[in-house]
Amino acid sequence: MQQIHRHSRMLRVTRGALLLLVIASTVSPALVQAEEWLTSWNDGASRERIVNFVQSVTDPTSRSYVPPAERIAVFDNDGTLWTEQPMYFQLAFILDRVKALAPQHPEWQTQEPFRSVLAGDMAGVAAAGEHGLLELMAATHAGTTSEEFAGIVSDWLASARHPRFQRPYTELTYAPMKELLAYLRANGFKTFIVSGGGIEFMRVFGERVYGIPPEQMVGSSIRTRYELRDGKPVIARLPEIDFIDDQAGKPVGIHKYIGRRPILAFGNSDGDFQMLEYTTSGTGPRLGLILHHDDAEREYAYDRKSSVGRLERGLDEAAQRGWVVVSMKSDWRTVY
Amino acid sequence: MQQIHRHSRMLRVTRGALLLLVIASTVSPALVQAEEWLTSWNDGASRERIVNFVQSVTDPTSRSYVPPAERIAVFDNDGTLWTEQPMYFQLAFILDRVKALAPQHPEWQTQEPFRSVLAGDMAGVAAAGEHGLLELMAATHAGTTSEEFAGIVSDWLASARHPRFQRPYTELTYAPMKELLAYLRANGFKTFIVSGGGIEFMRVFGERVYGIPPEQMVGSSIRTRYELRDGKPVIARLPEIDFIDDQAGKPVGIHKYIGRRPILAFGNSDGDFQMLEYTTSGTGPRLGLILHHDDAEREYAYDRKSSVGRLERGLDEAAQRGWVVVSMKSDWRTVY
Repeated sequence: MQQIHRHSRMLRVTRGALLLLVIASTVSPALVQAEEWLTSWNDGASRERIVNFVQSVTDPTSRSYVPPAERIAVFDNDGTLWTEQPMYFQLAFILDRVKALAPQHPEWQTQEPFRSVLAGDMAGVAAAGEHGLLELMAATHAGTTSEEFAGIVSDWLASARHPRFQRPYTELTYAPMKELLAYLRANGFKTFIVSGGGIEFMRVFGERVYGIPPEQMVGSSIRTRYELRDGKPVIARLPEIDFIDDQAGKPVGIHKYIGRRPILAFGNSDGDFQMLEYTTSGTGPRLGLILHHDDAEREYAYDRKSSVGRLERGLDEAAQRGWVVVSMKSDWRTVY
Repeated sequence: MQQIHRHSRMLRVTRGALLLLVIASTVSPALVQAEEWLTSWNDGASRERIVNFVQSVTDPTSRSYVPPAERIAVFDNDGTLWTEQPMYFQLAFILDRVKALAPQHPEWQTQEPFRSVLAGDMAGVAAAGEHGLLELMAATHAGTTSEEFAGIVSDWLASARHPRFQRPYTELTYAPMKELLAYLRANGFKTFIVSGGGIEFMRVFGERVYGIPPEQMVGSSIRTRYELRDGKPVIARLPEIDFIDDQAGKPVGIHKYIGRRPILAFGNSDGDFQMLEYTTSGTGPRLGLILHHDDAEREYAYDRKSSVGRLERGLDEAAQRGWVVVSMKSDWRTVY
């Protein structure tokens, strides 16, 4: 009886609370004022474009209003949410993994591209080309179960350090971008990662670091197979590429995993060009953003001539396409 | 100034409401009493198993408590969320689509499997085997953009009628299952469809009918390509299978799209066996459910010998695996 009383009292309280919440969120977007959320952004044109966009799509009286279910925002990862220099962090993982596995593979001492990796000869690794990279992928990303692989990545993230900043890679995620993700979510957006990086690599840290759950990640993948091992179901990772989520693959990945066109896309390299093109060519309000790495002091400065995260077409066409070029140097108060 | 006052007042109201909500949801699970949600279920052992499971994983004081982020529930579609007799509804779509396209394809009058489809000769269609089915898929599911395809499916759903019930197919979705989906979501679960059916077919109606958004659907797919047509980005549908989400493909699809193991899985045929096996063999609390079609009067009765939705191994092993076999006849007060 006491139980029932407590329940009915709680129900009344809860319904009142819900009602207040509904009223509050309908009447006023004040709940998620940008000033409280985007504190690592300088007060400039880039931040203003973002805030104006978010306010217009969330204002029920605006002609640009977008229902919450359609507020899909997609973010590249490497160079957009975390640093990608001097090499993609996943490549650093691959190189470290080859070294860790080398004792079990004496043949690697003479066999390329492993020999070059073990000798620290990056030119030799590059010379092995795409075929070499696929061999490295197979040796370091396949042959385990998915659970085992997640454990290996997790252990690596806990111990590896960035060569310049001497910090864990997961600490080299950008504070302004994490604020933006949270600000968008507080405004009813669903945030996704759409990255050329490996989906099972990113899933290990994406929820903890960005608040983006595994089911909201799109990335490159290898094929897997369902197997029983000692009667226990596992997902076995196979040495075959399943999907490359880069360039024209990004809209395909968005369509495959998300199934509707985003209204906001944020990238930093020409690998993101088609994702921005696809996003911003839909009807209704759309926002495309490119992070420009122009801050050698606090991070790195690179664009047209970089082998990692090359940005050329995006810079050339941003103005005519109405995309916002965010300057790390002038738009960000803090980087990490 | 008035603006500021209104904002700060709303903020206070909102914070109060949020606080009440947090208190209420922490103290009491009364918000989502099963009695209010599962009204189309008879008060029997099946419903009790479901309710007990949900209460134990949502009770913060329970040893079985599962954080909301991990409350992933997966549902088969054909025969689990909607009827699948006398043939998969997507097959009815294919047959209707062949008839609609026939005037543009005079060669189909003599060319199998199209000739059999146009003659209403289902034995002839079946005789064309897997190769014939792939030809039908290519002719009816590819060659358009994704947006065009969604429009075609939408138009078909609006006009097609089920041969026995003479109702739109989307009205042949099960009321008890839609209640269960809503009940789970109200308890912090994220609900997904994991179906052998085509993902782009299901995405057309899943949100409206089940409340499941496109990004929470896993299904079979054909390959797509990003293209510019008259300068406009489109997703072109290609006549090649990309992924078959059935049997051992279901855990692979779950891993690929969702990235973590569900804690609840609901199916109805042996095509769902591995999905239930994968789900219920994880550590911690798990629930596997099988819908048994034993109600010829209100729907259909079939299991071991059916060519559609065959259920044999699931029935044989449900008891030993602790899976709940839900009887449509005795557990459901209403079907549609």
